[in-house]
Amino acid sequence: MTDSLDHRLRGAWTPEGADAAHLTDRELRWLSRRIGDLTPSDPVAPDSAIAVPPSGLPGEARARLAEVVGPRHVLDEPRDRLERSGGLSYLDLLRRRNPASGMPVPDAVVLPADPDQVQRVLEVCVAHDVGVVPFGGGTSVVGGVTALKGDKDSVVVLDLERLNRLVSVDPVSHIAVLQAGVRAPDAERMLSAHGFTLGHVPQSYERATIGGFAATRSAGQASSGYGRFEDMVSGVRLATPRGEWRLGVAPASAAGPDLRHLAIGSEGALGVITEVAVRVRPVPETEHYEAFAVDGWERGCGLVRQLAQRGLLADITRLSDVDETRVSLHLAGSWKTGVLRRYLGVRGVGEPCLLVLGWHGESAKRRKDAMRLLRSGGAVWLSPAPAHAWLRGRFGGPRQRDALLDAGVCVETLETATHWSKIGTLYDRVRTALRGELGDPLIMCHVSHAYETGASLYFTVLTPRSTRDPVGQWQRAKTAACEAISDDRVGTISHHHAVGVDHAPYLEAEIGQLGGEVLAAAKRAVDPTGILNPGKLIR
Amino acid sequence: MTDSLDHRLRGAWTPEGADAAHLTDRELRWLSRRIGDLTPSDPVAPDSAIAVPPSGLPGEARARLAEVVGPRHVLDEPRDRLERSGGLSYLDLLRRRNPASGMPVPDAVVLPADPDQVQRVLEVCVAHDVGVVPFGGGTSVVGGVTALKGDKDSVVVLDLERLNRLVSVDPVSHIAVLQAGVRAPDAERMLSAHGFTLGHVPQSYERATIGGFAATRSAGQASSGYGRFEDMVSGVRLATPRGEWRLGVAPASAAGPDLRHLAIGSEGALGVITEVAVRVRPVPETEHYEAFAVDGWERGCGLVRQLAQRGLLADITRLSDVDETRVSLHLAGSWKTGVLRRYLGVRGVGEPCLLVLGWHGESAKRRKDAMRLLRSGGAVWLSPAPAHAWLRGRFGGPRQRDALLDAGVCVETLETATHWSKIGTLYDRVRTALRGELGDPLIMCHVSHAYETGASLYFTVLTPRSTRDPVGQWQRAKTAACEAISDDRVGTISHHHAVGVDHAPYLEAEIGQLGGEVLAAAKRAVDPTGILNPGKLIR
Repeated sequence: MTDSLDHRLRGAWTPEGADAAHLTDRELRWLSRRIGDLTPSDPVAPDSAIAVPPSGLPGEARARLAEVVGPRHVLDEPRDRLERSGGLSYLDLLRRRNPASGMPVPDAVVLPADPDQVQRVLEVCVAHDVGVVPFGGGTSVVGGVTALKGDKDSVVVLDLERLNRLVSVDPVSHIAVLQAGVRAPDAERMLSAHGFTLGHVPQSYERATIGGFAATRSAGQASSGYGRFEDMVSGVRLATPRGEWRLGVAPASAAGPDLRHLAIGSEGALGVITEVAVRVRPVPETEHYEAFAVDGWERGCGLVRQLAQRGLLADITRLSDVDETRVSLHLAGSWKTGVLRRYLGVRGVGEPCLLVLGWHGESAKRRKDAMRLLRSGGAVWLSPAPAHAWLRGRFGGPRQRDALLDAGVCVETLETATHWSKIGTLYDRVRTALRGELGDPLIMCHVSHAYETGASLYFTVLTPRSTRDPVGQWQRAKTAACEAISDDRVGTISHHHAVGVDHAPYLEAEIGQLGGEVLAAAKRAVDPTGILNPGKLIR
Repeated sequence: MTDSLDHRLRGAWTPEGADAAHLTDRELRWLSRRIGDLTPSDPVAPDSAIAVPPSGLPGEARARLAEVVGPRHVLDEPRDRLERSGGLSYLDLLRRRNPASGMPVPDAVVLPADPDQVQRVLEVCVAHDVGVVPFGGGTSVVGGVTALKGDKDSVVVLDLERLNRLVSVDPVSHIAVLQAGVRAPDAERMLSAHGFTLGHVPQSYERATIGGFAATRSAGQASSGYGRFEDMVSGVRLATPRGEWRLGVAPASAAGPDLRHLAIGSEGALGVITEVAVRVRPVPETEHYEAFAVDGWERGCGLVRQLAQRGLLADITRLSDVDETRVSLHLAGSWKTGVLRRYLGVRGVGEPCLLVLGWHGESAKRRKDAMRLLRSGGAVWLSPAPAHAWLRGRFGGPRQRDALLDAGVCVETLETATHWSKIGTLYDRVRTALRGELGDPLIMCHVSHAYETGASLYFTVLTPRSTRDPVGQWQRAKTAACEAISDDRVGTISHHHAVGVDHAPYLEAEIGQLGGEVLAAAKRAVDPTGILNPGKLIR
C-alpha cells in the first residue's frame, strides 16, 4: 500500500529508493550487434488507456467481506484492482503495454489483518462462490497470481500484506514463526534483532513474501548452504474453505506421508498459507565471496558436481556458461580491454566460465578442501571483484526486463533441473529448442543450485521483440523450451519458479496423470467448491 | 523363502547364521531385582496349536493370480500364510504365544517377480475385490503388515521378496535404482561392488527392505550423516489399482507439491512401491567410533543440540539417558566394578549419560570442532570401547525381545520427536504416563536422530509381564504413552516406526481431520475400491 501505482502496476520490480534499471547506450549498441536490430516497444500504457470493467463482486459479498476486514480493506477502485491484476511474467509485462490484450482484473482486493480474518474471508467467498487469488509480493513470473476467474463469476485478490508480523522466535529450537505477508527483507530485519537469519535470498528477495516462498517451493541463491525454502519449513498454518489446517509438530516424522510437502508448492490452490514456522540460523559472523574461471561449461559442471558430492559446496555456488560469462565480462568492460582474456589464455582457460562462491561463517572451513579440488580441476582464482559485482547486481535482473523491453528486446528466463548425468542433454535440448524458434538469440545459462544428485539450469534468453506478434513469439519459444524439458521426463518443468499458468500444461508429464488426479482429489477435500486460485496449478 | 518357519514365524528376528538372543542368569537376576518378580511366559505356540482357517480366496481369483505370477508363486498352505500373518510388534509376539487370540491370517501369499507382475496382481485383486497387504521384511513393530481384511472378504499378502535386483547405477549422479524387495544388507553388498553405500542402517537392517524403508519413512542409526530414508529417495515407482505411477525427475523441483512425499510414508495404502531410486555415496574409507560421558540428560541433550545447530554432528550420534547408560554399563560389567564410576566421579560426572559418535570418511573433518564443543560442555572422552560394544549389539535389540518375553518381561519400544525446546517436556510426559500405568517399570531413553530444530526420543520399557491380561497391560501403557505424545501436539506419534495399526488412532491429532480427509481423498484417486492395505494408515 505504500508503493505508488506507477511503481507496482508498471511491472516495476525496483523497490522505492533503489536504482531504477536502465540500459546505457553502450550496452544497447552491444546487444543490438549481438542479437539484431531492435525496434523500441510501445511504452507502458497509461491508466486511462486500460479499460477496467466494473467490479462484478455481488453487493452482499462485498458487504460481508467489509464486515470481516473493515470497509477500508475492501478495495474496488480500478487503480487498486489493476495493481494486483497479475505478477511479473513476460506476458504480464507485455499486457501492460498493450491494454487491448485483455488483462484479467480482479473484482476487488481484500486485505485481511490476521489468520482469523483470512479464514473468515474464505467462508464468505465460499458462501457467495467467489474465487480467491492469494497475493503476496506479486512477483510470480509464471502467471501464479493472474486474476483468473475459472468457473466463478467473480474473483477477489486476497492481499496478505497486512499479515506482516514475526509471531514468535524459539531461540532454543532455532524456529521462528512468520506471518505469510512478511517480505523477505523485513523477515531478515526482524530476525536479525534476535541474532538470526533465514538465509533465503532468491532474485525476488526485495519484494517476495514468506507465504509466497512456501506456496511456490522457492529456492534462494544461497540454497547450497541454507537449503531450499522447503528445507526451512518446520510448520505451516493454512486457511482453507474446510477450516484451518496446521501441519508440522516435529523436525521429522514417520506419521504417514509428510503433508507439509503438499502445502509447500500448493500455489494457493489447497489453502491460503497464513503462517510459516521456519528454521533459522545465527547470523554468520563473516561472509566471503570470490570468483574463479573454469575452462568450459562441461568441466565447470563437473567441478560443481564434485563439490556437491564431496560436501564442499559454498553457501552460494554459481557457475555461468561461456555466453553468460562473456556478457558479464563484456558489460563490465573487463573483457574488451583484453587484459583478462590474455591472462586466462596464459593459464589455459580459453572458454572461461565464471564460478562465484560465497562462504558464510562456519562454512568457510570447507573452503580449503574446496580450493584444492578446484585447483586440481584447473579452475583459476580471479579475485573477489567479479563475485562482488554479481552480489551488487543480484536482484537487478527482474528490474532490467522493463528497460530491455523498452528498447525492443524480448527477454525471458526459464529454469529447470535434472540429474548430473543428464545436465548436458538438458542444456543442449533447451538451447536447440530456443534457437529453433528464435533464430540466433542470445542464450545465457547458469547453475545456481547444486545437489549431490543433480543441479538446476537457469536460462536467460534475449532476442529482438517481434513487433507484429510479441505474444505469439513468446508462446512459441516457451512451448518449445517446455517441451524440450518435459519430453522423456529429462528435467523438471520448474526448479523454483513454480507452475502457475505457464507451466500447467506440462505438469502431468512430470507427475503423471495419477499425480494430477491426486492433487485434484486433495483439492476437493479442502476446497470442495474450487474457490482457491482457480485455473492454475490444479484445474 | 530361504528362512525356515521356525525362523520367521516365531518372531525370530535373528538372520540365519547370527547368534540367537538369550539372557544370562546374571542379566535375569539383575532385571528381576530392578523391575520385580517375573513369571516365565507361555512358549511360542507350535504350528499345530494355531487354527488356520481355510483360504477364503475365490478360486477364480486364485487361478488368475497363478496365471500372472506362476502357480508356484501363489501359496495357500497354512504354514506359508502364517509366516506372513503379521510383523514383529509386541502384540504380534504375544499372539504367537496365545493362538486363541485370533491371529489374522491372509488367504494366500502371492510372490510376483517384477514390477509388471505387481501391477497385474493388483488388477486381478481389483477385479475380485481382494485386499492386498504389501510385505517386505515383515519387521513392522506397529502392525503395518497385519493381514487385516478391512471390508474385503479375502486378503492376500503381496510378498515382494522376488523383487530383489539392483536395477541400475548412475555413478555420475550418485543414484541407484533398487527393487523394493531388496533387503538392506543385500543392497549394501550390491552397491559396494560399484563403490557405493546407501548408509541406511536402522535397527531392522538385517531383515528390512528398500520398499519398506520408503513406505514407512524410515530413519537409520546414521541419519545424522546420511539423512533419513526420505532424504535419500530420488524417485519412486509404484503400482496402483489405477496404473503405474512414477515420481521424481530431478533432485529438486517447484512443479507443485512434491508428491514423492506422499508416496514415502504411504505404508502400502496408496500403492505398492516396486522400485526406489536412491541417492548413494562412495563407501567411506574410514569409520571411527568413540564414546563420551556427559553429566546428566539435560546437559547431554544441550550438547547434541549444539552439535546439530553448528553442523558438527557425527554420522552416528546417539545419547543415552541416565537409566539406559546405567543398564548398558551394568550389563557390560563395567559399572559394577566401580572403576568407571570412580573415574567419572573424579571428573565431575555424577549422572553419566553415554554419548556414542561415529565418524565416516570425510565427516571426521568436523571432529576437531565437535571435540572442542564437547570438552567445553563437560563431556568426558571414555574410549572407543563402549561405542564398539554398542556397534556389535546394535541390531540385537529386536532379537532380545523374544528372550525377554520367554523370561516373563513385557518389553516395548516407542519413539517420537519434537523441537529442542520441548524435548524435556516430552521426555517427562512419556515417562510419567508409562509409570502411571506400569508402576515402576525400567524406562530407558536415547536420542539417536538429531536435527537443527529438534530430535527423536526412543524409549525402551521393561516391566513384569502381566500373566492375567498381557494384551490389556500393553494396550493401557501404549495408550497412555501415545496420549502423552499427541496431547497438545507436543511430539510426533512416530519418528520412524510409522503408523500401522497401533498409531492410527493418533494420526489426526497430528495432521488434523483435514489431513486425514486429504489422505483418504488421495487414496480414492489411486485405489477407488480400497484394496490396498485395508484398515491401517488410511481408514
